[in-house]
Amino acid sequence: MDQIRTFTEVSRLSPRAHGRFSALVSPEWTVAGRPNGGYLLAMAARAAAAMAGRPHVIAASAHYLLSPDPGPVELEAEVLRAGQSATQVRVRLAQDGNPCVEALILAGELDPDAKPYWDKGGPQPGAARYEDCPRIPARGPAGLPVAIYDQVQARLDPEGLGFAAGRPSGSGELRGWLALPECEPFDPFSLVYAADSFPPATLEIEVSGWVPTLELTVYVRALPVPGPVQILQRVHLIDGERADEECVVWDRAGRLVAQGRQLAAIRLGR
Amino acid sequence: MDQIRTFTEVSRLSPRAHGRFSALVSPEWTVAGRPNGGYLLAMAARAAAAMAGRPHVIAASAHYLLSPDPGPVELEAEVLRAGQSATQVRVRLAQDGNPCVEALILAGELDPDAKPYWDKGGPQPGAARYEDCPRIPARGPAGLPVAIYDQVQARLDPEGLGFAAGRPSGSGELRGWLALPECEPFDPFSLVYAADSFPPATLEIEVSGWVPTLELTVYVRALPVPGPVQILQRVHLIDGERADEECVVWDRAGRLVAQGRQLAAIRLGR
Repeated sequence: MDQIRTFTEVSRLSPRAHGRFSALVSPEWTVAGRPNGGYLLAMAARAAAAMAGRPHVIAASAHYLLSPDPGPVELEAEVLRAGQSATQVRVRLAQDGNPCVEALILAGELDPDAKPYWDKGGPQPGAARYEDCPRIPARGPAGLPVAIYDQVQARLDPEGLGFAAGRPSGSGELRGWLALPECEPFDPFSLVYAADSFPPATLEIEVSGWVPTLELTVYVRALPVPGPVQILQRVHLIDGERADEECVVWDRAGRLVAQGRQLAAIRLGR
Repeated sequence: MDQIRTFTEVSRLSPRAHGRFSALVSPEWTVAGRPNGGYLLAMAARAAAAMAGRPHVIAASAHYLLSPDPGPVELEAEVLRAGQSATQVRVRLAQDGNPCVEALILAGELDPDAKPYWDKGGPQPGAARYEDCPRIPARGPAGLPVAIYDQVQARLDPEGLGFAAGRPSGSGELRGWLALPECEPFDPFSLVYAADSFPPATLEIEVSGWVPTLELTVYVRALPVPGPVQILQRVHLIDGERADEECVVWDRAGRLVAQGRQLAAIRLGR
């Protein structure tokens, strides 16, 4: 680990020609040397919002084609439809001309005065206090180096520490907290990363190797208050060597601010 | 209602030039005159699988730009990456040259011998027996005509009938069953439709008008046994005039075969 840089710094884009941007994928925002998928999707969301002239990302869906190396990448954004209150954009993130991430983004503006109208339909925040959750170390249970955990603070509820000690609880669920480097407040773009920031909750079922994301969709539901966000990551089903994972992100005040859903490949059950 | 046609018939594509297909959107597979979003995504999935030379759809993500009228549409599919066991494809469904649905599809082959390895992480089937669930009528609670319910049999658990009588239970959850016309067995393409086939579960909170889908992602997890599928549709949060809905689809044997997640616009909480 050489230095700590903020999320804003590591996800910055440089505009090139119309609809084209370049960016540098940080070698520190990686898991086993591969860039985190939520981090790459956040870059795509920045390109979409810039093209749309909208301040926020509302929904982002990505299919992962090829894992880029840390270093320079190019992004190309095409407006599909500009509506009255939101714009739909297609973004391709490529490296050396090879498409790596293909994403569809809904860019718009989240209302700072909106209030949750109904929020009783899913899991509720339930992690121990931030201070009581130990930080996840930058080395995974299968020995994988997780450099990104030297950057962000991902903290696990003590109840979910079984897998780290080689004793998965069987719950398929991890709870905890996430804080960005330098205590940077979360915004809609870093919430896209947050929805893919936790270890695979499959680790609480059985330790496996690399669990590469095939598809990731994130909905940003509200503007968060400053401070760390609380996270629930959970698996529903492992079948046919694929696992789905749901991620729920609440801000420090307990408001649901983002939801993620992903399908990943996993070598269990063969 | 003039005639009943199977899902295979109403979602059939005609190949044109390389990567191009034409199709006819049925006026019967509509809600308030607008084609069902899962039905359109199933057409896009067919185009992707055909282009990829793969038999099944594994994951499909769509952003809805413009609701096409029933009638002729054109689909254009581009292979993004052909991997060893799956192919990623981008598909655009357009009408009169106007893009209507933009989709990213993972096409592959589901293993008929796969068995669920772990399935304890989410809701379990819980609807009353198919025979004990009344069929949803082809007219919604706000008076909207739902022609598609004269085609498919969507049946609601009696516990979820409150909204139909103008008394939403407040659960934000609907359970029931779905059968295709002519008892056609489900396949991965019709499962994509199934994941968007139920009424908005927001109706069990408060009756509203049209709830247009902004984004829909479906994962097909396994090949279903013949027979109707059981469905759970539920809301987690309504905030900022948007609602998320999760859909879980089990086959008649109780195996989880598909999962849907959507973000929709809703005029509640203003």
